[in-house]
Amino acid sequence: MYTESKSLPRKIEIYDSTLRDGSQSEGISFSINDKKKIISLLDGFGVRYIEAGNPFSNPKDLKVFEEMKDVKLKNATLCAFGSTARSEDPENDPGIRALLASGTDAVAIVAKCRKSQVIDILGITPEKNLTYIKKSVSYLKSCGKEVIFDAEHFFDGYFEDSDYALSCLSASVSAGVDVLTLCDTNGGTLPHDISSVVSEISKRFPDSRLSIHCHDDCACAVANSIAAVLAGACQVQGTFIGFGERCGNADLSAIMPALTIKCGMDCEVDLRSLRLTAKQIAEISNVRLRHTHPYVGKCAFAHKGGMHIDAVQKCPSSFEHIPPEAVGNSRKYLVSEVSGRSTILAELGHLIPDLTKSSPEVELITARLKEREFEGYQYESASASFELLIKKELGLWKSPFRVIMYKSNDDFPAPDGEQQASAMIKIEVGGKTELSCADGNGPVNAIDGALRKALHAFYPQVDLMHLNDYKVRVIDLGKNTDSKVRVLIDSSDSTSSFSTIGVSCDIIEASFIALVDSYEYFLSKEISPS
Amino acid sequence: MYTESKSLPRKIEIYDSTLRDGSQSEGISFSINDKKKIISLLDGFGVRYIEAGNPFSNPKDLKVFEEMKDVKLKNATLCAFGSTARSEDPENDPGIRALLASGTDAVAIVAKCRKSQVIDILGITPEKNLTYIKKSVSYLKSCGKEVIFDAEHFFDGYFEDSDYALSCLSASVSAGVDVLTLCDTNGGTLPHDISSVVSEISKRFPDSRLSIHCHDDCACAVANSIAAVLAGACQVQGTFIGFGERCGNADLSAIMPALTIKCGMDCEVDLRSLRLTAKQIAEISNVRLRHTHPYVGKCAFAHKGGMHIDAVQKCPSSFEHIPPEAVGNSRKYLVSEVSGRSTILAELGHLIPDLTKSSPEVELITARLKEREFEGYQYESASASFELLIKKELGLWKSPFRVIMYKSNDDFPAPDGEQQASAMIKIEVGGKTELSCADGNGPVNAIDGALRKALHAFYPQVDLMHLNDYKVRVIDLGKNTDSKVRVLIDSSDSTSSFSTIGVSCDIIEASFIALVDSYEYFLSKEISPS
Repeated sequence: MYTESKSLPRKIEIYDSTLRDGSQSEGISFSINDKKKIISLLDGFGVRYIEAGNPFSNPKDLKVFEEMKDVKLKNATLCAFGSTARSEDPENDPGIRALLASGTDAVAIVAKCRKSQVIDILGITPEKNLTYIKKSVSYLKSCGKEVIFDAEHFFDGYFEDSDYALSCLSASVSAGVDVLTLCDTNGGTLPHDISSVVSEISKRFPDSRLSIHCHDDCACAVANSIAAVLAGACQVQGTFIGFGERCGNADLSAIMPALTIKCGMDCEVDLRSLRLTAKQIAEISNVRLRHTHPYVGKCAFAHKGGMHIDAVQKCPSSFEHIPPEAVGNSRKYLVSEVSGRSTILAELGHLIPDLTKSSPEVELITARLKEREFEGYQYESASASFELLIKKELGLWKSPFRVIMYKSNDDFPAPDGEQQASAMIKIEVGGKTELSCADGNGPVNAIDGALRKALHAFYPQVDLMHLNDYKVRVIDLGKNTDSKVRVLIDSSDSTSSFSTIGVSCDIIEASFIALVDSYEYFLSKEISPS
Repeated sequence: MYTESKSLPRKIEIYDSTLRDGSQSEGISFSINDKKKIISLLDGFGVRYIEAGNPFSNPKDLKVFEEMKDVKLKNATLCAFGSTARSEDPENDPGIRALLASGTDAVAIVAKCRKSQVIDILGITPEKNLTYIKKSVSYLKSCGKEVIFDAEHFFDGYFEDSDYALSCLSASVSAGVDVLTLCDTNGGTLPHDISSVVSEISKRFPDSRLSIHCHDDCACAVANSIAAVLAGACQVQGTFIGFGERCGNADLSAIMPALTIKCGMDCEVDLRSLRLTAKQIAEISNVRLRHTHPYVGKCAFAHKGGMHIDAVQKCPSSFEHIPPEAVGNSRKYLVSEVSGRSTILAELGHLIPDLTKSSPEVELITARLKEREFEGYQYESASASFELLIKKELGLWKSPFRVIMYKSNDDFPAPDGEQQASAMIKIEVGGKTELSCADGNGPVNAIDGALRKALHAFYPQVDLMHLNDYKVRVIDLGKNTDSKVRVLIDSSDSTSSFSTIGVSCDIIEASFIALVDSYEYFLSKEISPS
């Protein structure tokens, strides 16, 4: 079955619904500006369709479409999403009107295709549903729109009553629809069933463009989408990094490289910027891109076990299914207690040439690393702190400053009616001390301000460095506010970014440790004392 | 092809490698005690094999096996993992010796089955590799072990040189192996290829028990495992919640329900405790179970869009592919700005009967919720705070206490040489005030201690409440230590647990808000003032 379908269309249309179905995720809420930024990223990446919102149910989405009217996209067609009319008069249906008001060239309209749900949920006869489909598609076509018909609950519907499910497709085809989207709405269908049903539909509707829309409730949305393409679909709906209600929608970042690299198809997208685009979308959405995310995660090509690292150095394909650069990612060796000496050697090699696995330096760092990991440190995500640790342990370090003391206060209500937090810090550089203080939005912000002021007296170049990201993770679960916290700080100067770590029961101290590492690393790396 | 295989064995053996392959994940490191706890959970759940470690590469694992010698398991067979011998004399191979020293009834031994990698990575002839396989299996069988042969890089190897890959399987079969595990080591194979190769192997080795071992680099490990079972495999290797190097191993928590509920097979496990077991394993591993995790995640059966909530109430299968209880999960309605009035109505319905969608109370709460979400609150994970918000907004609230002021200090070095943090708090209850102070590991711990002491003067029952979990999330990325933080606190009394939220630029204030909500909720819920 699969071999046969290898002769099918090589060009695959990518239809991204991050901004519509993706916004159904827990914790996701896009502002108008977020949506415009994501549209620009998706367009630049080469996505064919961008479903940017549901203008009827969400007035904010209508605003997005209004603001997008003046914007020229390079690759993508914007698409507004709605339902078929709820009457035989689509012209006066408020949902259809909102779709037209969006002014997009393409519109997607959804209708239920499972007979029992038409009756039980919509409360209309199955025949009426067919009429609504037909009239809605006809009317939107008469308005000059490209019409994508989303056949909701299609697979369940097909298994319940295939004749009815097919008649929904026929109704929209007879009205001139452009694309038939087969939706696995509750995400419950497995690849072998997707494959056989899509195969059947592509035989029944040989002249229609078929699209597939999957959800990940069985952890099979990617496989289902690929199976559908192999069985005849020419369009894949999904969300860029799998956002979506419940377990998420089909993850386009995993589908596009598989179709391109493994199935010889052409999604007409810029795969080499896959990771960057995924990271940017995650950032705008305020969601952390999972480290283990296939293709685009930080650890998608990371190696931890010593033997694996050895093997991948000799033969990359042993533990890498594609070259990481093909999707804009890179190989990474994780430093950890199980990583073995070859990893630590690879890290140390940057600093000290001519070491071997049995050098005492390698042994010393391995031992120290195990101790620090026991305390809660994890250097896998804090390579600047790891470099400082190595230098300090091996006596290669001269600290650019020393903190003598700090004090931080947090007072509710705020003593001055403005800032609740304040901090004082005293540092020493070359025998001279400097005491500074600052207030701030919170204690960490106040300590950062005070430390930066004190350092500025000796190193005015600290102005060139800034903090990009600050993360807190509670470790030792189950011990409540008495737990340890791990703070990761990501900083950058004009040329590069670097990450540092601090661990303590005290969140202020953990933040302080990571902050000090950031300033130390920055000062030691590029710039000598003024 | 799939239809044909429906007549295949219904009993499927589940082989869990959380403790071995799973420990290759970034950030995972199991103590001996962690391993023992997870073994007990997996055994109770009904898993058939537990691969608990690699005794040769990790001496800690040998200790686990030693300590497990006295423990009787109900369902599972423990398995030690290692390599085939690196010589023709397995009896004196240190790896094989470590396997035997583990004292497990079953052992898994891995050998490369891709010809080019045998030459390039192992640096031995392909024939020698076959000899090592044969001698290792023979020797372990002569020692009375159940032997599972892990055919590493099998699928790549099969596509590169199928004869050689098959000869590796033949070598172990001729030596009396019990199980042949086909490994997609680099995770690069797609389901249609898995299906055709496994089909072929099951024809070639009709008398062998076939196992499948997949990695999730293509986001297809679950689909691949299911495809292999449908094509003839009787055993599935994976990790309970998908831990594993790079993108993770095949996720058993998604494979077992699909095989059981959707494919009519029997994995001989207790599916109704699937979510609980997954949560417990995640907790021991100090990893957050993803909310979107299929079947077991908190949001796997959560509904956000108003129309979806309406539909799922009328017909659960519309947006739920299985009944959530089948895997020990439950339906959830997410409260958010896009959730629509029917969600808010469902929430309010618990507190005030006889409301309708157009009641002014529903409108008021909807508006207030949007404001709070704009400020950074998310009530989806903090239903106790949401209940308090509703009661306060609707005038149904009488606060059990009021905080007049707090002060917190953090001093480095610690003034008393012990605790860096201290806090003072003043509260008022029925016209009387109480001032208390406490020190602590950190400022939040100190404030919690001081507040608890002050409350105790009025409400001694606070002793019954304790905090279970404390989470911090930085929001507004890109604004560094000036960002807002969202704190979630999970607390419980003797009967139930509840979650509260606080948001502020100041981490101490955010924690304070969530703490106050916890105490208020606890005091208002069950217990009247003493």
